[in-house]
Amino acid sequence: MDVSKMLSGARLDASSRRPLYLQIAGLIGEKIKSLVLPAGTKLPPERELAVLFGVSRTTAINAYRCLEQQGLVVTRVGSGTYVEELPAGREEEGRSVPWIQLMTPFPQLPLSTVLREILEVDFSGGSISLAAGMPDPALYPVELLRQGIAGSNNGINPVDLGHISTEGYGPLRNLVARMIADRGIESTGEDVMITAGSQQGLYLIGKALLEPGDYVVVESPTFIGAHQVFSASGARILSLPVAGQFPFSLLEDYLVRYRPKLLYVIPTYHNPTGRLMPENERRDLLKLAARHRLVVLEDDPYSELYYDEKPPASLKALDDYGGVVYLSTYSKVLFPGLRTGYVVAHPALLNRMAHEKQFIDLHSNNLAQWLLCRLLESDALREHLALVRGEYKKRRDALAKALRRYCGEELSFETPRGGFYIWCRNNRPVLSGRLLQQSAGEGVSFVPGEAFYVHPPEGEKEFRLCFVTHAEKPLQEGARRLARALAGIRRTGKQRDIIVNQPVKPLI
Amino acid sequence: MDVSKMLSGARLDASSRRPLYLQIAGLIGEKIKSLVLPAGTKLPPERELAVLFGVSRTTAINAYRCLEQQGLVVTRVGSGTYVEELPAGREEEGRSVPWIQLMTPFPQLPLSTVLREILEVDFSGGSISLAAGMPDPALYPVELLRQGIAGSNNGINPVDLGHISTEGYGPLRNLVARMIADRGIESTGEDVMITAGSQQGLYLIGKALLEPGDYVVVESPTFIGAHQVFSASGARILSLPVAGQFPFSLLEDYLVRYRPKLLYVIPTYHNPTGRLMPENERRDLLKLAARHRLVVLEDDPYSELYYDEKPPASLKALDDYGGVVYLSTYSKVLFPGLRTGYVVAHPALLNRMAHEKQFIDLHSNNLAQWLLCRLLESDALREHLALVRGEYKKRRDALAKALRRYCGEELSFETPRGGFYIWCRNNRPVLSGRLLQQSAGEGVSFVPGEAFYVHPPEGEKEFRLCFVTHAEKPLQEGARRLARALAGIRRTGKQRDIIVNQPVKPLI
Repeated sequence: MDVSKMLSGARLDASSRRPLYLQIAGLIGEKIKSLVLPAGTKLPPERELAVLFGVSRTTAINAYRCLEQQGLVVTRVGSGTYVEELPAGREEEGRSVPWIQLMTPFPQLPLSTVLREILEVDFSGGSISLAAGMPDPALYPVELLRQGIAGSNNGINPVDLGHISTEGYGPLRNLVARMIADRGIESTGEDVMITAGSQQGLYLIGKALLEPGDYVVVESPTFIGAHQVFSASGARILSLPVAGQFPFSLLEDYLVRYRPKLLYVIPTYHNPTGRLMPENERRDLLKLAARHRLVVLEDDPYSELYYDEKPPASLKALDDYGGVVYLSTYSKVLFPGLRTGYVVAHPALLNRMAHEKQFIDLHSNNLAQWLLCRLLESDALREHLALVRGEYKKRRDALAKALRRYCGEELSFETPRGGFYIWCRNNRPVLSGRLLQQSAGEGVSFVPGEAFYVHPPEGEKEFRLCFVTHAEKPLQEGARRLARALAGIRRTGKQRDIIVNQPVKPLI
Repeated sequence: MDVSKMLSGARLDASSRRPLYLQIAGLIGEKIKSLVLPAGTKLPPERELAVLFGVSRTTAINAYRCLEQQGLVVTRVGSGTYVEELPAGREEEGRSVPWIQLMTPFPQLPLSTVLREILEVDFSGGSISLAAGMPDPALYPVELLRQGIAGSNNGINPVDLGHISTEGYGPLRNLVARMIADRGIESTGEDVMITAGSQQGLYLIGKALLEPGDYVVVESPTFIGAHQVFSASGARILSLPVAGQFPFSLLEDYLVRYRPKLLYVIPTYHNPTGRLMPENERRDLLKLAARHRLVVLEDDPYSELYYDEKPPASLKALDDYGGVVYLSTYSKVLFPGLRTGYVVAHPALLNRMAHEKQFIDLHSNNLAQWLLCRLLESDALREHLALVRGEYKKRRDALAKALRRYCGEELSFETPRGGFYIWCRNNRPVLSGRLLQQSAGEGVSFVPGEAFYVHPPEGEKEFRLCFVTHAEKPLQEGARRLARALAGIRRTGKQRDIIVNQPVKPLI
């Protein structure tokens, strides 16, 4: 349950005569009584509550004290504030439906919740977010969009706005196949399935191939959305460290011991590390995979975003045993709101995925698919790519230079040759979670490294900076603020915020 | 596996010197060798294969004979043609990935597959489809769409094309809440979640509330997509006959005996029967539901499409115990390609559904949501509704009149007061599946009744006609063709095509 997010929608009435702490207590109390916040839910720490509502810490403390007096919350020393069990008969006349109790068990992903709460601390008001992996809205091709739909030569055929096949809009499937031929991938429209972003591709592949107890191998660190969706399907995750050379012997060990159902990799401008898998490694990986008939899921959202030379051929292009499933998206090269990605795979797998997709949404939205056809038919997408490559290259260089200049001693990183991210490591024993808190005060944010690991606290000294969302000036300012946050921690001394392996106490 | 669909993409080369039966055998053989058609798959009957490729029945028979000689298929007398087990070593050098064998078990929904095959018989070339529940493309508001995106006063804010919250685009959620206030539903944007069509709403509700073994009550007949998604979640389906009065005592019996997790109903212009639940029944249903804290899932895609008086208040509007979850969509009133529907429910349920949706697609597409905002802010949607109501009323009357005129003796039906469908029943012992085959020859199609029942062959004498997809003239012609098909069956005598409860033979 994302408590901070739930509360962040609520607004206080500054003009009211009711004290702010009572307003806050009222808002939270209401959510407890209506069971939106069920018994046992941990509420945000006082300092976070204060930030959330823009009040002093004293006001936040008073709000919790007031709720405690009403018997709605309980404070456990050293642990935090929790929602109390509601006394019987307290639910509005006992007539309402106890929604929380009716729901199916949900795979708990506690880390992601903690992180979301950290990341949702209010960063507005001049704060610079280097956290989200999103292209810069200022570069979205809004004009192309307008022309695409309004252009007099591009009249929409109404039939294209009706139901289309679950696998996607036929002309788009063909155009995607033609587009990826440039990346050396031989395919026809029948090998392509259009999905609601690559997230849906991951979900459908999980539905088609994974059952509880199955094993999946992922790089470590890796894209958080992937390992979450695999975990939610009940699979166990085996992690493969990807700093330095690819660990072939460990992978082979996994293959022999656990017979994993698939290997998930981002070989080109990896998220979060920016790593580019060299061509010889790609070939060796495929040799090993072919020997074991291993399904390799290649996630490739960034390969068109190269800033020096073109990347080597994709695994899919080099695949000679038919085991590579290829996943990509237009979210990173155009804009995320398109929600349009694609999977290139054996038609038998696509057919099964289509049956799952039928249950989920019948088919993806036609407007975005129609529009993408217009962009792919013309040279518009190619021109847009050339534009953003030039711009992002400047941004990457600006951030890398500023980091070296302002945080030189404190951080290690390699300049990536493409993609969205610079992956940093604190040279001194500074935890990224701690650094994020300090950075919030300075007005800059990022994603702490542990978000990308299956087994935190791995990555506790690492963090990811996205260099494409802002122009060069804000990036430089972001690096300066980061340097100030690091200096602030140097002054206050180190502090272990994340407690690992807390002793397990018996439930009494 | 949808074999007919898979084959229907393939085209023969009429100019080739290679005989057609060899071309067909080649196409099918290729799919068998590449495991797209796995061992044990039932292939289409010869007459269907003939229709599929537009060849004579003899050519189809010869194609199968040829495949049999190659050891690729086997014919079982009285049962059909099946793909044979591939001899070892036949898979391309044994190096390819055996996709079919790697997939997770899929809930078999044999009926729907059979029906899809029937419905995918080529109806092009002047054939009139009264099957799909789709609005008429000629009435799609394409011009509104163009204006909405291109209008100079409606500049898109690029930020709206980035990531938005999983629950939907905020302004649209608020506008939906305002719009449904007209239907008596009190809500705020926080009670509304935007989904990829109402299909996704069904899926997410299933994820949040249903586990294998749970019970769900549905009307019988009902919307096929709903009972399929509930079945796929592993739930058992209890069916509630909805001809005539609502069966309250049976429902109460189910509630007491099985404690079902939810009741799924379409109270307003029901699909497929067109039935309108009267207001007193609505109130009685809610009283019973409240007493049992039953979750009622009200699916309401059609209530704005009334052709006489407005329908009574929705269950959600009358709900006084908070147990009604409301589901609707813009597919039926605008166009299906928008893929935009919504769920109105308790925020605790929406929060859980949003967590599931995050895995599936992060959020629904922004373009459609942005566009809907433009249509809802102006009076455009209201004006469009007035237009289609007038038009569909004429179509309903035209089809009803033509059916009475041409098929009067043969069919029974009631004229619906809104929605999309006329639900017919054969007065004589004619099976709808048989009638559909005969109708294909006459150039008209519909959906046979059994598609809407959880337990076929219920509905085998019923069928659904959609009266909104075509204008009055084609509707009249459709009724004439249906009359000819009925006459054709009268001449050839009755024939039982659907074999019920075939004796189970031991596997030897």
